[in-house]
Amino acid sequence: MAVNLAAPRAQDLHPVAGVELGVAMAGIKKPGRKDLLVMRLAPGSAVAGVFTKNRFCAAPVLLCKKNLRNLVRALVINTGNANAGTGADGLKRAQQVCAALAVRLDCKPAEVLPFSTGVIMEPLPAERIVAAMPSLKDCDWAVAAEAIMTTDTVAKAVSTKVRLSKGEATITGIAKGAGMIRPDMATMLGFVATDAGVSRANLSRILKGAAQRSFNSITVDGDTSTNDSFVLIATGKGPAVSSAKDLAALAAAIESVSVQLAQAIVRDGEGATKFVTVRVERGRSEAECRKVAYAIAHSPLVKTAFFASDPNLGRILAAVGYAGVELDVSRVDLFIDQVPVAKAGARNPAYREEQAVAAMKKPEFTVRVVLNRGKAAATVWTCDFSFDYVKINAEYRT
Amino acid sequence: MAVNLAAPRAQDLHPVAGVELGVAMAGIKKPGRKDLLVMRLAPGSAVAGVFTKNRFCAAPVLLCKKNLRNLVRALVINTGNANAGTGADGLKRAQQVCAALAVRLDCKPAEVLPFSTGVIMEPLPAERIVAAMPSLKDCDWAVAAEAIMTTDTVAKAVSTKVRLSKGEATITGIAKGAGMIRPDMATMLGFVATDAGVSRANLSRILKGAAQRSFNSITVDGDTSTNDSFVLIATGKGPAVSSAKDLAALAAAIESVSVQLAQAIVRDGEGATKFVTVRVERGRSEAECRKVAYAIAHSPLVKTAFFASDPNLGRILAAVGYAGVELDVSRVDLFIDQVPVAKAGARNPAYREEQAVAAMKKPEFTVRVVLNRGKAAATVWTCDFSFDYVKINAEYRT
Repeated sequence: MAVNLAAPRAQDLHPVAGVELGVAMAGIKKPGRKDLLVMRLAPGSAVAGVFTKNRFCAAPVLLCKKNLRNLVRALVINTGNANAGTGADGLKRAQQVCAALAVRLDCKPAEVLPFSTGVIMEPLPAERIVAAMPSLKDCDWAVAAEAIMTTDTVAKAVSTKVRLSKGEATITGIAKGAGMIRPDMATMLGFVATDAGVSRANLSRILKGAAQRSFNSITVDGDTSTNDSFVLIATGKGPAVSSAKDLAALAAAIESVSVQLAQAIVRDGEGATKFVTVRVERGRSEAECRKVAYAIAHSPLVKTAFFASDPNLGRILAAVGYAGVELDVSRVDLFIDQVPVAKAGARNPAYREEQAVAAMKKPEFTVRVVLNRGKAAATVWTCDFSFDYVKINAEYRT
Repeated sequence: MAVNLAAPRAQDLHPVAGVELGVAMAGIKKPGRKDLLVMRLAPGSAVAGVFTKNRFCAAPVLLCKKNLRNLVRALVINTGNANAGTGADGLKRAQQVCAALAVRLDCKPAEVLPFSTGVIMEPLPAERIVAAMPSLKDCDWAVAAEAIMTTDTVAKAVSTKVRLSKGEATITGIAKGAGMIRPDMATMLGFVATDAGVSRANLSRILKGAAQRSFNSITVDGDTSTNDSFVLIATGKGPAVSSAKDLAALAAAIESVSVQLAQAIVRDGEGATKFVTVRVERGRSEAECRKVAYAIAHSPLVKTAFFASDPNLGRILAAVGYAGVELDVSRVDLFIDQVPVAKAGARNPAYREEQAVAAMKKPEFTVRVVLNRGKAAATVWTCDFSFDYVKINAEYRT
């Protein structure tokens, strides 16, 4: 059951001029399920992408990285099979899919980006994907968000508009995944499109910033998948960015959409019952703040305490202590929401446990660590570790 | 329920000449429980120790590190309270305990090493520990092993003899903990004593090697506690080490005792139903082999698959891929016990899943990863992640 997350309504998702969407049922893993999505982009669209750092990255990821050097005219996304751990044969099958779509769309195979998500180490049934292409039907963003779901319980889509000097630009994005956590369901995909006109170089910069503060700031259990991909598209069919102010406004709007999509992934985390913001402040660098935040967000002991609404300070402070930062722990303060539970590295004498318990019983709360040694800060979002996490992952394939 | 681990029998644990043991009930957390252990060492004993790297290390750890510069005449260990996250006041209370024991044993306070294990961030009731000292009673190693238990389900003690050129030396050790995993029960303590005569410098070298391949090669959930301590004692009341061969024999015997104690901690891991050896071979360095082994041993996805006896290759290979080693994954082989499940980074075509399922249904099995790029190797021991892990940790304080 996802934490405070409802399925998007079609009427809330603005179409993006220059992006045409199509879905089909290719029967990749099971018949009768929309498992193939194509995004056709207007000529001249700028596209940027960031991908998993896992050494076992999937064949489509390798091909995406290569094809991003070219102009991009289409994206093709399948669920049901990750085409990962499949070697040279996997690469050939991904190329086959790109080639077939290129024929249909009258572009070059190298102008198509392929994405796969699903079971690892099984051969991709490329022939079924190719055979389904003639049955591709136009669809809206809500249907597209559903088409890329695997074990997600709720479809994930976010849409907004932003005013630029030459008019209003639209931004719409979809994502799938229940954390960086599903090597076999092959994890996180995010696609955000805008009709704004923006150079590839600027788009790339926007992407990196947005990725860092959204998809790269979440964790369900610390596992990094073989297929994680986040792609940003700017079709140029709407207003062009024509000033630094425009660029900043567009970047902020794209980041906001990306953060909401990333948070949706955590809210739909496997077995999640709590959505927790971990905020680390007053560190010397963003990097050290992130280290501390991730030590807390990855600790199974802390996450089981979240599940139990148990303000187990020792577990949180111990995680701060082993984060690999050379801290002076006698300066560290800790808050659960507004409750100051630890001061100067020790229990706050005025703190009563009921205060923190009340905060942690809510479905959403913030753990805030103040290092008191600098001006940097970082935020990471995570969920708790419940019986259902074990159940889902122990029984996943049975 | 511990995996293949029985309580030690008193008659199997050899006394160590030069070590006198005493226990008492100090009522630190609950009344009527042996919660105080004292080890009195013969004059001239050599002592070496390694301690947690957690920045929030406990007051007794700080004091141990300082007092180890002196000759050591006694160790005092309490359960029920970790004296961690307690600041300057905690240090004062630990010193109080050392001072009181020094008066009783007619030595200096700085010749006493204090150890605490139990709840974090609560003041140590030093006055109760001091008040219990007159009631200390002589005991054997089996009772000593029981006295340092906290949430352990089985006491942990190992004993052996080793032939040196001048006679037979005895080695006996005890440990507590159910992994590097209990910041609030304040985790892992290990004490190994020998009557062999060996210099402090050599003892220190033996300790570091043994620690690396025993207590530093296990994980239950990756959490590093505030109180982890491993201490090696050589009383010199037995045969002296008088050759390089003697030294090697003694080091090997001490390592063997330490490994058995460390494995006992994993076998008694919280909620453990499987004891798993993760072996990484043919890497470029021991360090990179350990990185890969720990990535596997820490992955909640891999550990839930262990629990389910599910040979989920994707999860294991994905963990190898994100271990932070610049691998050529197309050379990686993977075995479950003797079953070659993956070859050259992809599924072994001859592999049938029933083979690995059969291996993983046993309470003990080995995951072996062959990197095929060097001559180094490393072994890590871990357990699975079960419903009971979540249950124990979610309900720990309720």
